Amino acid sequence: MIVETLAVGTELLLGQIVNTNAAEIGERLAVAGLTHRQQTVVGDNLGRMVDAIALAMSRSDALIITGGIGPTADDVTREAICLATGRSMAYSDEYAEDLRARWERRGRAMPTSNLRQAEYPEGGELLANPKGSAPGVYIEHANTMIFALPGVPAEMLPMIDAEVLPRLRAAAGDQGALVSRVIRTFGESESAVGELLADIFAESSNPTVAFLASSSEIKIRLTAHAVNEEAARALIAPIEAIVVARLGHRIFGYDEDTIERGLATRFLDRGWTIGTAESATAGSISSRLTSQPGSSAWFRGGIVAYHEDIKVGLLDVSPMTIDKHGVVSEAVAIEMAVGARRVLGVDVAVSVTGSAGPDPLGQEVGTMIIGVATPDGARARTVRWPGDRERIRTYTTTAALHMVRLAVDGVWWETS
Amino acid sequence: MIVETLAVGTELLLGQIVNTNAAEIGERLAVAGLTHRQQTVVGDNLGRMVDAIALAMSRSDALIITGGIGPTADDVTREAICLATGRSMAYSDEYAEDLRARWERRGRAMPTSNLRQAEYPEGGELLANPKGSAPGVYIEHANTMIFALPGVPAEMLPMIDAEVLPRLRAAAGDQGALVSRVIRTFGESESAVGELLADIFAESSNPTVAFLASSSEIKIRLTAHAVNEEAARALIAPIEAIVVARLGHRIFGYDEDTIERGLATRFLDRGWTIGTAESATAGSISSRLTSQPGSSAWFRGGIVAYHEDIKVGLLDVSPMTIDKHGVVSEAVAIEMAVGARRVLGVDVAVSVTGSAGPDPLGQEVGTMIIGVATPDGARARTVRWPGDRERIRTYTTTAALHMVRLAVDGVWWETS
Repeated sequence: MIVETLAVGTELLLGQIVNTNAAEIGERLAVAGLTHRQQTVVGDNLGRMVDAIALAMSRSDALIITGGIGPTADDVTREAICLATGRSMAYSDEYAEDLRARWERRGRAMPTSNLRQAEYPEGGELLANPKGSAPGVYIEHANTMIFALPGVPAEMLPMIDAEVLPRLRAAAGDQGALVSRVIRTFGESESAVGELLADIFAESSNPTVAFLASSSEIKIRLTAHAVNEEAARALIAPIEAIVVARLGHRIFGYDEDTIERGLATRFLDRGWTIGTAESATAGSISSRLTSQPGSSAWFRGGIVAYHEDIKVGLLDVSPMTIDKHGVVSEAVAIEMAVGARRVLGVDVAVSVTGSAGPDPLGQEVGTMIIGVATPDGARARTVRWPGDRERIRTYTTTAALHMVRLAVDGVWWETS
Repeated sequence: MIVETLAVGTELLLGQIVNTNAAEIGERLAVAGLTHRQQTVVGDNLGRMVDAIALAMSRSDALIITGGIGPTADDVTREAICLATGRSMAYSDEYAEDLRARWERRGRAMPTSNLRQAEYPEGGELLANPKGSAPGVYIEHANTMIFALPGVPAEMLPMIDAEVLPRLRAAAGDQGALVSRVIRTFGESESAVGELLADIFAESSNPTVAFLASSSEIKIRLTAHAVNEEAARALIAPIEAIVVARLGHRIFGYDEDTIERGLATRFLDRGWTIGTAESATAGSISSRLTSQPGSSAWFRGGIVAYHEDIKVGLLDVSPMTIDKHGVVSEAVAIEMAVGARRVLGVDVAVSVTGSAGPDPLGQEVGTMIIGVATPDGARARTVRWPGDRERIRTYTTTAALHMVRLAVDGVWWETS
């Protein structure tokens, strides 16, 4: 099954927005085992759209179009499909009624132009858009399946999952279930994870094993095909068990888990609170921790101790420790974490001191020290990252969240 | 001059990376007054590349290819150009020597495969790549200008500016200079800025006027064509003067300026220091302020006062003020800023208290209050943003930086 995608929108060609849709759809097609042949972007231009649709019909089994199905005059996807397939335009009274009712419920009169959204190429069908007002369109013509979806990602992606992928997989003769399980790790490189799982990668074909790196995280994706979901899960389970046994505490979550959510669960389970003492990361750890709704149940606050005076004055770091070890030192990181635990009245405190450049502060630029204090004690670890200031700070922030996870799980004390 | 772009890379089709190159190139083409007809992505597949190149030659004046010019076997852009144009492959002894010398300077033996980078289609020329080892290729065939550039943005974009755009503009008969000036504003919507400048937008054709919205910032881009850069600047100057007079303190910078850099300049000029007291934004303002190298000269630290206890205990906010006005109130924001100024020993302190959801804290979700204290006094302002938690926090952080700018400039006290 050869699939291609076509994004419509002059603002994409002008560089005013980035085409993230192409990547999101591409990843879903790959997971479904479908071939993404090519991706095209054209402007809101009827002639060029017709050319692009005709070309796709000549070489691919399916075409997914995103954008150009709204109510305004420059939304010409429906017209372009009609012209490319030689069909006339049909009109859904039912959908028009539905649109009118929506506007009525909001107490407003509907602009007539919105009725364009009830049009569709003859012989096609409208696809439900649960997150918006413009329905999608599906039509089969000359052995090509053509889908037209909204350009807004929040509307488009659920329609890919609910409407497009099931039809494509059925047409590909894939009647069974496709289940993916993502195992998320931190702390090893992609090549190190690959080596730990080399035999599984080489030998397992169902589930397939894929490694995906995104910044400092490595994901292992297991994807199984079977007659139904239960059978697919049964194929995944033994391989997943091996992966989990080998990767151990490197694993911080599964599927859509994030480290922030993993920490939230841990703190709520234990009834613990956390606070921060940040120098080089300057609030980034606090900001990440509180990206979780409901974080006020376990996050109390932090001290951004950028200047030495603040470390000494607000966190009770000893000037003698700074003199003896330097401000970028494990001793200072530990005193910062211990001080934050007391000053903020929290169970766990995480600290960072380091040099993100340009001033090396007595250490190589990129040297970052992360401290964690818990009711069980305090420890620090030195990490070094390559790259620019922003990258160093982002990596350190992520690493600090993982060190908190390990410390709360009681693993750090064994492994370092 | 009709230009199209072709990105090569299976990882783009699989959704492992997002095609930001297309947007960056698109924006540059738009500024240069060139038409970006279409954008295509294909995998590392010789046949599909040849098809895409042939098609582009049939309909466009120029084709910019990104990716596929590295040393490995899956880099097939050079071969694809040869096949699509019916040319044989030439070899640059000079570039091969240059490559060998580079590797020698790094004290390493060059893998033979790297010599592929010295190959180019007969009749073409190599384009210098100052940021990397793979040279670009330029060839003209059947009235189409074909450029092949690296896929890595940091290598590719300087080559667009230095090699591609001058050739395209010359071919378009545009021998003169093209100068852009970007005026960056904050605090008004795109439509409000558009209304303030409606007559200029309608009447000025050289320079052209474009409005660009990126999150909460609105940019006005003036682009002039003239015989030389000086003449182009002279065309921009009077229009820029009008824009500046009308937009006044909404303007925070020009061209590549950022609000963070603008603040750094102000603090250094005045010899002032700054600190933060953040509740809802929880360290995001500190993190943004310290994204600037050298920020330790003027940023001292902050208190992330998420829990009420921290506001009272570390920032000396009065429990009576919280009882009377609620924790999300201008009175509390002012006490937080005044407290931070004293506790952190800084000249300027900025504070935030608000509800990013889900707990409304006695206010509508999305209500954010920003306080600023300077040697001249303290003030607070209430803002309300739509959207989700992350968006609300990001907008508030940006707005807080701008409120600091206005306060330091002494403007806030007049306008609010």
